[in-house]
Amino acid sequence: MAHISIIGTGNMGQAIAGLVTKGGNTVETVNSAQTGTPVTGDIVVLAVPYSAVTDIVAQRGEQLAGKIVVDITNPVDFATFDGLTVPADGSAAAEIAAQLPDSTVLKAFNTNFGGTLVGGSVGAETTTVLIAGDDADAKALLTGVVTAAGLKAVDAGGLKRARELEALGFLQITLAAGEKITWTGGFAVSH
Amino acid sequence: MAHISIIGTGNMGQAIAGLVTKGGNTVETVNSAQTGTPVTGDIVVLAVPYSAVTDIVAQRGEQLAGKIVVDITNPVDFATFDGLTVPADGSAAAEIAAQLPDSTVLKAFNTNFGGTLVGGSVGAETTTVLIAGDDADAKALLTGVVTAAGLKAVDAGGLKRARELEALGFLQITLAAGEKITWTGGFAVSH
Repeated sequence: MAHISIIGTGNMGQAIAGLVTKGGNTVETVNSAQTGTPVTGDIVVLAVPYSAVTDIVAQRGEQLAGKIVVDITNPVDFATFDGLTVPADGSAAAEIAAQLPDSTVLKAFNTNFGGTLVGGSVGAETTTVLIAGDDADAKALLTGVVTAAGLKAVDAGGLKRARELEALGFLQITLAAGEKITWTGGFAVSH
Repeated sequence: MAHISIIGTGNMGQAIAGLVTKGGNTVETVNSAQTGTPVTGDIVVLAVPYSAVTDIVAQRGEQLAGKIVVDITNPVDFATFDGLTVPADGSAAAEIAAQLPDSTVLKAFNTNFGGTLVGGSVGAETTTVLIAGDDADAKALLTGVVTAAGLKAVDAGGLKRARELEALGFLQITLAAGEKITWTGGFAVSH
């Protein structure tokens, strides 16, 4: 059984917490203001907006050492809605990994709208969580948490693929914001 | 009724030609070696690998002036299979648009595996063609060709979004090559 900490109690934090317990794993949730509350999970999900990540990582860096840290962010430039705020050849996940050299960073959940995690499907397909990272054991542990909840997970490759996952997440957000798709639809993965 | 020229007679060229005629539009197909055969379509689809595009554009630049040119390429670095060969902040479509200032360039079909264009579905969802470009009329014309064939089309935004479409296309290819998905599956769009 895995023990998961989730920092952030918004839409995505709640959806991921629901998955964890549905799959029979244990969860603790703290909001981003509870800086004095330590997190004890083997996996720590940073379920906060990209703009809040740097502070949390700075506050909790030592506490996150040795743990699997999951970045779910889409670093969209909300001023222009026309690109990401991270360098074109980088990713939010790469930045977080650089700030946390003693943690194992995974990118996951950023291509899933919250409603599709709660509902379990994207259209007619079971919701698939795409997971990128450089550590196979860490990816396998998170995959187990996801599949225990009845969803699918796909290993999307090394952490370098976070760049493509963030491009996909951004594109999906622009399509929903532009009413080309709904916030409960988007990109489904057919296996 | 639209008249479509397709340069390239491979898997994708054949699949797109099939769509055009299925929808009651007319098509002419030339292979990339038929450099002396002019293309007469209102829309010209460059259904060739990325590595072949530069030569074709150089040979046919004047002929393509005033036409809608559709770039379907995924400029994957096949030496490393770990990225794209275009600059991180650019796209193949942007390069082609720069080479063809008198044409209207669209990015489309690069997120569709050929089998899903022929079969009409990705898993349980109708195949959706994502189209990016800066000219609304051109996108509407191509959308009409796609929807007449029974598929769906989504306006993915300006030509700048080709960058995200190429990231999506690349990711999808890596997943299929790694046997995480099949070549008849991939990213479906739930509307």
